[in-house]
Amino acid sequence: MRTFLSSLFLILLSWTSFAQVDSSAIVASHRPDGLFSSTRGAVQNWFASTSPALKFDPSMNHEEFLDWQWKMQAAMASLMKHPCLERQEPKMVKSVQRDGYRVEKWESYPLPGSVVAFLVLVPDGVDASHPAEASFLCIPGFGQTKELVAGEKGGVYDLSAEPLENVPLSAMAKHYVEEGWVAVAVDNPSFGELADNGKSDYLNSSRILLEGGWSYLGYSSYCDKVVLDWMKTRPYLRNDRIVVSGFSLGTEPMMAIGLMDKDIYAFVYNDFLCNTRERILVMTKPDSKGERPFPNSIEHLIPEFLSYFDFPDIVAAFAPRPVICVEGGMDRDFNLIKKAYEIAGAPSAFTCYHYDKYADPSSRTYYDELPEGLDRTEYFELVNCDSPRHGFKKDYVLPWLRGLFPKKAQ
Amino acid sequence: MRTFLSSLFLILLSWTSFAQVDSSAIVASHRPDGLFSSTRGAVQNWFASTSPALKFDPSMNHEEFLDWQWKMQAAMASLMKHPCLERQEPKMVKSVQRDGYRVEKWESYPLPGSVVAFLVLVPDGVDASHPAEASFLCIPGFGQTKELVAGEKGGVYDLSAEPLENVPLSAMAKHYVEEGWVAVAVDNPSFGELADNGKSDYLNSSRILLEGGWSYLGYSSYCDKVVLDWMKTRPYLRNDRIVVSGFSLGTEPMMAIGLMDKDIYAFVYNDFLCNTRERILVMTKPDSKGERPFPNSIEHLIPEFLSYFDFPDIVAAFAPRPVICVEGGMDRDFNLIKKAYEIAGAPSAFTCYHYDKYADPSSRTYYDELPEGLDRTEYFELVNCDSPRHGFKKDYVLPWLRGLFPKKAQ
Repeated sequence: MRTFLSSLFLILLSWTSFAQVDSSAIVASHRPDGLFSSTRGAVQNWFASTSPALKFDPSMNHEEFLDWQWKMQAAMASLMKHPCLERQEPKMVKSVQRDGYRVEKWESYPLPGSVVAFLVLVPDGVDASHPAEASFLCIPGFGQTKELVAGEKGGVYDLSAEPLENVPLSAMAKHYVEEGWVAVAVDNPSFGELADNGKSDYLNSSRILLEGGWSYLGYSSYCDKVVLDWMKTRPYLRNDRIVVSGFSLGTEPMMAIGLMDKDIYAFVYNDFLCNTRERILVMTKPDSKGERPFPNSIEHLIPEFLSYFDFPDIVAAFAPRPVICVEGGMDRDFNLIKKAYEIAGAPSAFTCYHYDKYADPSSRTYYDELPEGLDRTEYFELVNCDSPRHGFKKDYVLPWLRGLFPKKAQ
Repeated sequence: MRTFLSSLFLILLSWTSFAQVDSSAIVASHRPDGLFSSTRGAVQNWFASTSPALKFDPSMNHEEFLDWQWKMQAAMASLMKHPCLERQEPKMVKSVQRDGYRVEKWESYPLPGSVVAFLVLVPDGVDASHPAEASFLCIPGFGQTKELVAGEKGGVYDLSAEPLENVPLSAMAKHYVEEGWVAVAVDNPSFGELADNGKSDYLNSSRILLEGGWSYLGYSSYCDKVVLDWMKTRPYLRNDRIVVSGFSLGTEPMMAIGLMDKDIYAFVYNDFLCNTRERILVMTKPDSKGERPFPNSIEHLIPEFLSYFDFPDIVAAFAPRPVICVEGGMDRDFNLIKKAYEIAGAPSAFTCYHYDKYADPSSRTYYDELPEGLDRTEYFELVNCDSPRHGFKKDYVLPWLRGLFPKKAQ
């Protein structure tokens, strides 16, 4: 009996040692009863036990799908908390001619006491009699400006500098205007002309918004919606052919206003498609200091957002409106979105490209659920994201758009 | 005319230069029309324009005051989101005898799948036949543990070490048990025995809670409420004489459960009394790197909290229950609280001490509204807070408690 107990003890000891080594990357219980004694364990376990109320269910029929879309829209509106205000109309403050198009600087007044500027690129020859076939609301990424997106010189907010000679890939508005389309470029809050005394202040402004019961995304999507609504009133564009083009951080306000505004015709989704709930739960491997990473900063925090849905659900709810995703993600998520487009009767309206590195299906990973214990690099690998190649995917986006908006015979 | 315009230009230029120098500490508009063009300006202006829905109004009569208290309680409950769960009862896992009292280690099970330990200090001679006249739920500050609060050795969670020989001032539970009272010591989440693999993780756990629509304070106050409810069932204490004693961070869950649970008899508020909305709005002076500080980290973030009330309103709503504040603050706020206690018919139930440095009324500042543009040091000065002396104020707390709970003649 003693031998048996000793063996059992040794087995338990070695199991415990093994578990302790192995468990550093995951949020593990160190108790025989499996209960979590750390707050992180308790919280991780709690969060994992919750489920988004409006998770897309691929078994829906068309009627249920329509009903679900309304619920998605209502939930997004309740999360974004856009205020209903009497607002001053946007005002043009400058216009300069560029090669083949003009750039106008406008000011909008989303909240009393403040101003948010944006740029409008209008091709030569486009006017009320010859409205643009397509127009774009271009929302840049973190650390990008409306000037970059428009191919203008960074930090010069009055359009007094020459435009950039070598057009950067990120200049999505410029790429669009060169196709003969109208393009509007906005800033994300807290950066560029919206910075605080020349310093980006994503964190402080986000925190104040959160303290007041709002959020960075609520505010940014509201500012973008103000510009979108103004776009619809322009005589030189077709207000039933407005596309929202979001890069990286800019995909978030794109998704928000995309659900809330059925007038938007199509979407350019230029980031990998992320399941953010899963990312939080699996990116648990401590760094060299022993700290677990959190995937992002509080400008991405929208309290209760993940109680309703996640990014793939939102894109699924865009069906049947045309969407192109150009930086891949997990086939698991894209298969759900494709199913949504089938239910909506428009299977060809959803297009997806992976990063070159993962273009070959055999180079991608296929998980139903990602394993816990990943660091950022491992996470990106498992979701087929070649993050060093993150950038505007002009070569996928422009041909797709030309297909959507074919040039008319002159 | 030209001379006049030149002069005007110079005046404007010098005004602008002056404004730019002067405005670095505050969130200023740099435009002639006074509109804010930075996100921080827009957000600061928006936040300043909002007002807490349940701000204490000193002109209330007694009936209105009672009605307001119910609204405060309901609002706090809606913010804290304590789940209604079938829970396993707390379980004692160890008991050790100390000099004049015993320390018991208990485990509570606030959420399925996890465990939260706490310590119970019971004086010798206290039992169901001789219940303690007073008992205390002791909630420590940031970076403090239940072991410290109980006078036990830090990091030894099974009570196997000798208790600390030199009792630290922070050991509030030990100070209470030495008075013949029962004292329960809890951890704040994410620290001590609740840390994540030995690392404090206030930020990550807070963030996950916020993502899921909860908050650090919602979770911590829930864990504390579970212990408080268990305390009420102990036969060796009077469940109508339970005091919550909060130090620093611990004052926050104290305020939360204080509003939600009318069974709590009295409160020890061991921090300066902060108007947190005002602190956010006035602490705007950039540091040496040009970054504006934010007063605290996201374990203090409760979305929408400040839409309802602030700390002084909550303490006002405790009237007529006895409260002692022992680290001062602004007379402006204390005068409101005193008014609340007058309305509630118990003017003597509120007691307030300032830091020694500000004990003389002539050494304190008196503002109706603090000016914007402060750094942390200036802010503390203006709110009469001698932060290097932040600590448990035994010499004020114990005599006040002895007055509340006089020793019975043997």
